[in-house]
Amino acid sequence: MAGVEPVEPERPFGLERLVFFSDAVFAIAMTLLVVDLRLPDLAEPVTERELLAALGEQAPRIAGYVLSFTVIGLYWLAHWRRYRYIERTDQRLVLINLALLGFVAFMPFPTAVLGEHGDLAAALVLYAVSLSLTGLLGTASWLYAYRAGLTMPGLADGVVRFGALSGLITPAVMLGSLGLLALGADPDTVKLTWILIFVAHLVLSRASGGGTSLLSR
Amino acid sequence: MAGVEPVEPERPFGLERLVFFSDAVFAIAMTLLVVDLRLPDLAEPVTERELLAALGEQAPRIAGYVLSFTVIGLYWLAHWRRYRYIERTDQRLVLINLALLGFVAFMPFPTAVLGEHGDLAAALVLYAVSLSLTGLLGTASWLYAYRAGLTMPGLADGVVRFGALSGLITPAVMLGSLGLLALGADPDTVKLTWILIFVAHLVLSRASGGGTSLLSR
Amino acid sequence: MAGVEPVEPERPFGLERLVFFSDAVFAIAMTLLVVDLRLPDLAEPVTERELLAALGEQAPRIAGYVLSFTVIGLYWLAHWRRYRYIERTDQRLVLINLALLGFVAFMPFPTAVLGEHGDLAAALVLYAVSLSLTGLLGTASWLYAYRAGLTMPGLADGVVRFGALSGLITPAVMLGSLGLLALGADPDTVKLTWILIFVAHLVLSRASGGGTSLLSR
Amino acid sequence: MAGVEPVEPERPFGLERLVFFSDAVFAIAMTLLVVDLRLPDLAEPVTERELLAALGEQAPRIAGYVLSFTVIGLYWLAHWRRYRYIERTDQRLVLINLALLGFVAFMPFPTAVLGEHGDLAAALVLYAVSLSLTGLLGTASWLYAYRAGLTMPGLADGVVRFGALSGLITPAVMLGSLGLLALGADPDTVKLTWILIFVAHLVLSRASGGGTSLLSR
Repeated sequence: MAGVEPVEPERPFGLERLVFFSDAVFAIAMTLLVVDLRLPDLAEPVTERELLAALGEQAPRIAGYVLSFTVIGLYWLAHWRRYRYIERTDQRLVLINLALLGFVAFMPFPTAVLGEHGDLAAALVLYAVSLSLTGLLGTASWLYAYRAGLTMPGLADGVVRFGALSGLITPAVMLGSLGLLALGADPDTVKLTWILIFVAHLVLSRASGGGTSLLSR
Repeated sequence: MAGVEPVEPERPFGLERLVFFSDAVFAIAMTLLVVDLRLPDLAEPVTERELLAALGEQAPRIAGYVLSFTVIGLYWLAHWRRYRYIERTDQRLVLINLALLGFVAFMPFPTAVLGEHGDLAAALVLYAVSLSLTGLLGTASWLYAYRAGLTMPGLADGVVRFGALSGLITPAVMLGSLGLLALGADPDTVKLTWILIFVAHLVLSRASGGGTSLLSR
Repeated sequence: MAGVEPVEPERPFGLERLVFFSDAVFAIAMTLLVVDLRLPDLAEPVTERELLAALGEQAPRIAGYVLSFTVIGLYWLAHWRRYRYIERTDQRLVLINLALLGFVAFMPFPTAVLGEHGDLAAALVLYAVSLSLTGLLGTASWLYAYRAGLTMPGLADGVVRFGALSGLITPAVMLGSLGLLALGADPDTVKLTWILIFVAHLVLSRASGGGTSLLSR
Repeated sequence: MAGVEPVEPERPFGLERLVFFSDAVFAIAMTLLVVDLRLPDLAEPVTERELLAALGEQAPRIAGYVLSFTVIGLYWLAHWRRYRYIERTDQRLVLINLALLGFVAFMPFPTAVLGEHGDLAAALVLYAVSLSLTGLLGTASWLYAYRAGLTMPGLADGVVRFGALSGLITPAVMLGSLGLLALGADPDTVKLTWILIFVAHLVLSRASGGGTSLLSR
């Protein structure tokens, strides 16, 4: 069957469909994070004080929701940015993208574990590794697309580098923080270092011309 | 890397993708509200009377579902209306929009707390503050887009004002009702005042030419 | 502010966005139906026989899943068909559509109640009324769009009638079956009559030229 | 009413909407698979060792997540590929597609049962039959579209065959493995044979020109 040629012109929504399918998975994973937030059953009658205490106990989970929503949101932003420069697709890119989406859809689980057991190293490792693999797959999909000639021609070096680097920030910070953990740092300190993710994104964004030149249409 | 210029022409779906991603988050958050509705396990055999009683006990949660679905629906309507006048996007608008979506996706949690503990002030405050921040971020995104020149040129003043005001109705009513609560009003009275949200939307809609002139294509 | 005129040309995706947002709600509601299907915790070790028994006990819920997925699927089909003839939108159509989506998103709850307590009249009434209101709102949205001149000009009478009737089949059968229930018919018989929904759809589809002439592009 | 003719030109998004609706169902079903992953409540205080043990106990469910995500992802890929050659739609294709989506949306249930009771034949049969029917419906939709003349004209034989075969791989492997089970093979061996699904996809993809010629735009 080698040499089978598709009849031209194909339907125009091959790439568009890949992108919208990805958006749906991102959106659902980000929204499902909230399912983990729920109060325990409180014995009736419940007083204001008891409700406030129960809400207070949700604080680590709410923090986990905010963190995961933000980091996955930044991954979505990187995905959105990359696909503005990708013009075509092939089977390999679709498969790398599916692997990426598999990790995105997985995130509610490590987030729930972190919200429940954020004081234990195993929870941090699971979370950091899952998020890092997501980021690395994002960078891999971009580099593959660029090398396979699926991006628009004549892409500036800065655009290529920015698309690759934006997926490496979270893995770098997360995996680095696991090093601290291995050296004996306590879990709360390790989690604090994750703020560097947002700082680094800001710096990278400014370094590449404010991001605006990459984004404005 | 300053001065990196994107190669023209970029892929056309930058803004479209932002909008559809937002739609997906809105749709999922609105649909996930129903997950909170579930009957307790009833001891077999269950009589008609017991089932009716169990359904009756769900009434506050069903009311919470209706309220949240409607208010988030109105926010979606405002979003839909605003983006008919927004022509381009930049990184900041995307980030403000992500923050807005973060609050939209969060709403099933305060809704569940309100459905369970609607007689307690803490539940009302959590709910009112969450919904209000969502509305304020909607208005912020619109004003930012207008000032950054991302809207279509020559927008009438009424359109700009309408886009800003429609996001302020819910915060105004909700935060005002919290004032009543602080003054000692009972929670049920406070919730009744939230009907003003719909009245105010109707009035605003009529004041701005029935909304029709803004909406019809 | 009366007389505010939108600047022409508006962004083209006003109607498209309404439609895709609706699709997302339909898709999520239909997919969330499965969340109700879950085995009880079985005492370890579990034998083949116990697992088969537990699966067998899920049969009414699986039947509920199939029924709800199919009926909501038919509503989606009707929605899809109607919006092929709707060219523009206004605020009222958006609001009617939001109300319709609110009932669609609600359906996992009556479906779960029916799956759990399908032998009780209250469960049947809740289910039949919820589904019927969904259908009636579909018909209402179509008639409103037609009368407000939002459909394409010169629509054949048959198309208008078909668009209205397709939303009335389920309410007619469902509400009729409740009459049987009131007359003392047993719940299983009542549920059997719901098969008429599919028969009636088939008949209507053939009567209007096989549906094909309405659907083929 | 026979002979009712739609007024030309119809809205252009009939087929597009079918496709995006399908994408939403695929995306939600794939993402909902994660809901089954959750740790049991552990007695406080939880040690690292206990958390690791609890995570280890999730291994079969995580494997189930990976398997289902991948197989449904491959079905999505086949759907995506087929609809690049389908130009029009009719009522029957929409209905076959709805049936396909009903099985896709159902998959979180067999996946959960397999994750919980993967050592029992009943769980394997439920899972294998559900996935197989999904694949067969995919092939059925493609063959129907081709025979009804809904695909683009002049499609090469290889494209037609590839579109049909890609839906048959999983059923062939899965149903074959059930034969082994009937012959007394143990459940873990049976599950190992499912790796053949990926091998066969790879072989089929290469045999048909690397898939690239079918996919690149």
